[in-house]
Amino acid sequence: MIVVTGNLRIAPEDMDKARPHMQAVIEATRKEDGCLSCAYGEDVLEPGFVRISQRWLNWQALEAHAKTPHVVAWRAALKEIGVLHRDVVAYEAGEAREL
Amino acid sequence: MIVVTGNLRIAPEDMDKARPHMQAVIEATRKEDGCLSCAYGEDVLEPGFVRISQRWLNWQALEAHAKTPHVVAWRAALKEIGVLHRDVVAYEAGEAREL
Repeated sequence: MIVVTGNLRIAPEDMDKARPHMQAVIEATRKEDGCLSCAYGEDVLEPGFVRISQRWLNWQALEAHAKTPHVVAWRAALKEIGVLHRDVVAYEAGEAREL
Repeated sequence: MIVVTGNLRIAPEDMDKARPHMQAVIEATRKEDGCLSCAYGEDVLEPGFVRISQRWLNWQALEAHAKTPHVVAWRAALKEIGVLHRDVVAYEAGEAREL
């Protein structure tokens, strides 16, 4: 399984503009083959700082995700909105423990 | 490295009450030995649904975290606020890819 965690910073005043685009990409992503979960959360302490978390069945599913029309559309929307910072990393998951 | 992703659902109207407790536990957690990152984000589509993400140096650091006074205080605060759902899983990270 692949666990993705990421951070995306936009201007706090752009959150309302970004939200419908986020909704579109999140909902389409959740329907993809191999997508186990996908969520975006706005940092509880820093408005405009978006915390991304996803789980994928395998690398192939994640690679296919990057080429989907909804991801292409989301990236275009983000480019227009303006991204202040972005870092997203995918990790192959080993031992898992429920906390 | 250990990657933690989790979900915590509280009533949306309790977010303002919960936020100072979140701030306290997040800030104290970030100062712990072996804590590489710690963030809580409120789901951009579902108010009151909190997405937790953390990275830890190793299992030992994460185990020590669970016993800290700020985590004990946070759990007590949460119990008082009322938790509708909670699932948190830690994964040992293997291969990593920047996306």
